[in-house]
Amino acid sequence: MAQQKKMVEEITSMDEDFAKWYTDVVKKAELIEYTSVKGCMVIRPYGYAIWENIVHILDSMFKETGHENVCMPMFIPESLLNKEKDHVEGFAPEVAWVTHGGEEKLEERLCVRPTSETLFCEHYANIVHSYRDLPKLYNQWVSVVRWEKTTRPFLRSREFLWQEGHTIHATSEEAQAETIQMLNVYADFCEKYLAMPVVKGVKTPKERFAGAEDTYTIEALMHDGKALQSGTSHYFGDGFAKAFDIQFTGKDNQLHHPFQTSWGCTTRLIGAIIMTHGDDNGLVLPPAVAPTQLVIIPVASHKPGVLDKANELKDRLSKLARVKLDDSDNSPGWKFAEYEMKGVPLRLEIGPKDIENNQCVIVRRDNGEKLFVSLDELEEKIPELLKAVHDGLYQKALDRRAEMTFTAKDFAELKDIADNKPGFIKAMWCGDQACEDKLKEEAGVTSRCIPFEQDAITDKCVCCGKPATKMLYWGKAY
Amino acid sequence: MAQQKKMVEEITSMDEDFAKWYTDVVKKAELIEYTSVKGCMVIRPYGYAIWENIVHILDSMFKETGHENVCMPMFIPESLLNKEKDHVEGFAPEVAWVTHGGEEKLEERLCVRPTSETLFCEHYANIVHSYRDLPKLYNQWVSVVRWEKTTRPFLRSREFLWQEGHTIHATSEEAQAETIQMLNVYADFCEKYLAMPVVKGVKTPKERFAGAEDTYTIEALMHDGKALQSGTSHYFGDGFAKAFDIQFTGKDNQLHHPFQTSWGCTTRLIGAIIMTHGDDNGLVLPPAVAPTQLVIIPVASHKPGVLDKANELKDRLSKLARVKLDDSDNSPGWKFAEYEMKGVPLRLEIGPKDIENNQCVIVRRDNGEKLFVSLDELEEKIPELLKAVHDGLYQKALDRRAEMTFTAKDFAELKDIADNKPGFIKAMWCGDQACEDKLKEEAGVTSRCIPFEQDAITDKCVCCGKPATKMLYWGKAY
Repeated sequence: MAQQKKMVEEITSMDEDFAKWYTDVVKKAELIEYTSVKGCMVIRPYGYAIWENIVHILDSMFKETGHENVCMPMFIPESLLNKEKDHVEGFAPEVAWVTHGGEEKLEERLCVRPTSETLFCEHYANIVHSYRDLPKLYNQWVSVVRWEKTTRPFLRSREFLWQEGHTIHATSEEAQAETIQMLNVYADFCEKYLAMPVVKGVKTPKERFAGAEDTYTIEALMHDGKALQSGTSHYFGDGFAKAFDIQFTGKDNQLHHPFQTSWGCTTRLIGAIIMTHGDDNGLVLPPAVAPTQLVIIPVASHKPGVLDKANELKDRLSKLARVKLDDSDNSPGWKFAEYEMKGVPLRLEIGPKDIENNQCVIVRRDNGEKLFVSLDELEEKIPELLKAVHDGLYQKALDRRAEMTFTAKDFAELKDIADNKPGFIKAMWCGDQACEDKLKEEAGVTSRCIPFEQDAITDKCVCCGKPATKMLYWGKAY
Repeated sequence: MAQQKKMVEEITSMDEDFAKWYTDVVKKAELIEYTSVKGCMVIRPYGYAIWENIVHILDSMFKETGHENVCMPMFIPESLLNKEKDHVEGFAPEVAWVTHGGEEKLEERLCVRPTSETLFCEHYANIVHSYRDLPKLYNQWVSVVRWEKTTRPFLRSREFLWQEGHTIHATSEEAQAETIQMLNVYADFCEKYLAMPVVKGVKTPKERFAGAEDTYTIEALMHDGKALQSGTSHYFGDGFAKAFDIQFTGKDNQLHHPFQTSWGCTTRLIGAIIMTHGDDNGLVLPPAVAPTQLVIIPVASHKPGVLDKANELKDRLSKLARVKLDDSDNSPGWKFAEYEMKGVPLRLEIGPKDIENNQCVIVRRDNGEKLFVSLDELEEKIPELLKAVHDGLYQKALDRRAEMTFTAKDFAELKDIADNKPGFIKAMWCGDQACEDKLKEEAGVTSRCIPFEQDAITDKCVCCGKPATKMLYWGKAY
């Protein structure tokens, strides 16, 4: 047990230093490694396997809703980026510029895509001519680059992996329905697969994506009470179509500008998983995206029959779940700590006495519960327990969010909560950006969203006291 | 039939202008679209779906052979690229350089990865310390950039999608075995899934990858008699380990340099499919990677029962294959031409008379064969026919390669073949680079590989007449 203690001691505790705890987990669970390029990381096999599971599930959800994958170039000529005024203002300050190809200086510099609206628009202008060409429901899985000053693995990196959906429609109604549909896909994904409750809502004009008419968001609450924007869906109206001269002949034989959307989520979701479910023993993974769902650890594996039985169980259970057998010569105690650190949802221990009794021990990562299970009942029990871990994680996150969600009626109350109680603050807003700015400057909170589910705290703006009909979520955010 | 004729006429015939035929196919089958960045393309849904199928199969083959996916940054600092002398000389002339992040000039410029050996080496130096850390069997699916002067879709583009495997081993023997294993994986993939025969062999020193001790290749022969390098696997010895100071403590408690490999294949494979199987009616796709394996076309679909039956067949057959039903209001003739253009392996026609007779018509894309099949036998027939299309394509490509492979005993004979008969030329080589250079300059052929399967044409070098024991494949290449 000396080794086990040692491993656990290597992680800073959450209460002591949350940021350090986070960094310890991403490094020691072998999710990432730093590189000599600031803000760019190596995603290691264990981290990448989580991403592969996320991609696999989301990609199916996109295809079920009629979307097709494409792949755009990674470079955007400066003149193309400049075509939509708000968009270029939002992104130009944080792009990486390619100025030379080999020995030669380029005639026009190219930015490495920070997002691909402009590339999709150029493409749509080439391929959309008639109402018969609409809608186009496209998505791509790529990496993008934003030259951030302050970086943290998964949460804010100069290069990150993501998907970006880009769709184009004949009518505004259809494009708006698409925007909401994809927000719901994200929310369902977070709740059903990542066991992470989210608040769905719309951003204030100030917090909109550059070039969007409306930006919808899902906001999750992390362990430390900070909010994490976990996916966004944008409605563009026909602004991009006008800027890029995309037109189609309608059924009425007239030319029209089509309507567009885009929506994205990123490797940030891995950061969200860590900070929603993790604890002082390390990572805790929701079963749906865990690279290993069940680890088998033989106890007293030198005793006759133990390794054979462990191997037999591995073969049997691999039909039910992603199973790993650790038959290395490390001690069981070391292995317990190792797979706790790596967040494996279920641990199965099997030793000579268990075999005698035709049973095994199963330990849940989410709550440490230890169960004796008959070897004859594993086919039934393992799926039940994986579901129980998911439900347990979801409920715990939901309860914590409830405990950490406060309401404020006036500025003094809001400021007091912001200073002393980490979490979401629900408060009314008059709709004036000056109030939003003041809350940021004087209370240090930003508007997270105007949630779809409204409840009236008061009828007055929390900041200026003028009439207000919108309840907002406010908070500190990653 | 007027529309059908029109569509088919839009493709240049192969014999008239092979390069134009190729470009027509990639555009009209909607595989790609050009962009305003020279040499960078949009891979459209139909093209990307082929790539997704390739990725899916190859990725399974890599995982079955014990490899794990990771993700490295896309940027390489200039000083890191410079660490291995041969490698930087090979790649520096053709990389894209990032010099600015936002408004600021970078202290050190970064290249967009043309390949990632240097990044993997930096990472290995961080994580490999003991023999217990070896081997690492890594792969990544990313895009890379090489600033080519002359570009063609899929065959030579400035940005292209690929996978790059990078492995590191305790012994030279193990690394060499890995290099050969992965070449065999590529060859198996091409033959079993792409229906494309390949020659396996080793490159001459002149044609080696920058920094490699040995480069192995699979070479395929295109319809026009030009060779296409379709995958390569490199053995690095411990050269990179020494340049990047990667060392591990062996079981003997001494420090050693480990041995490395890398191996890659790219979206070029889509070009290879087009030029191996395509014909004057367009694309012909091997069933394993075809986005649609069977298209159902209702005939006289306004007649009662036809669309219902077509839908019923779609539901039934979707369990067996990737099936599409085209119930649009285009004419059957237009649809026939459209799906021939798109290379769909099987077409199923169903009309009122077929329904009366409890049968349908199935047409094979590879040879145009038309079969009447009982609706009761489809579950048996469709998989058989898909296999028959695969086998037919493979045999046709194999036969063509045999017809287009020549032997040359001396320079005059080789030059005559090179000038008049497109294809592979098998000829002996003394091992002297001067002869290789001369054949390139004076006969316009390059050495493709020294094949594993040797047969002695003569005992003299085809160029200088000196003793020679190695038989090489020579040819013009993409």
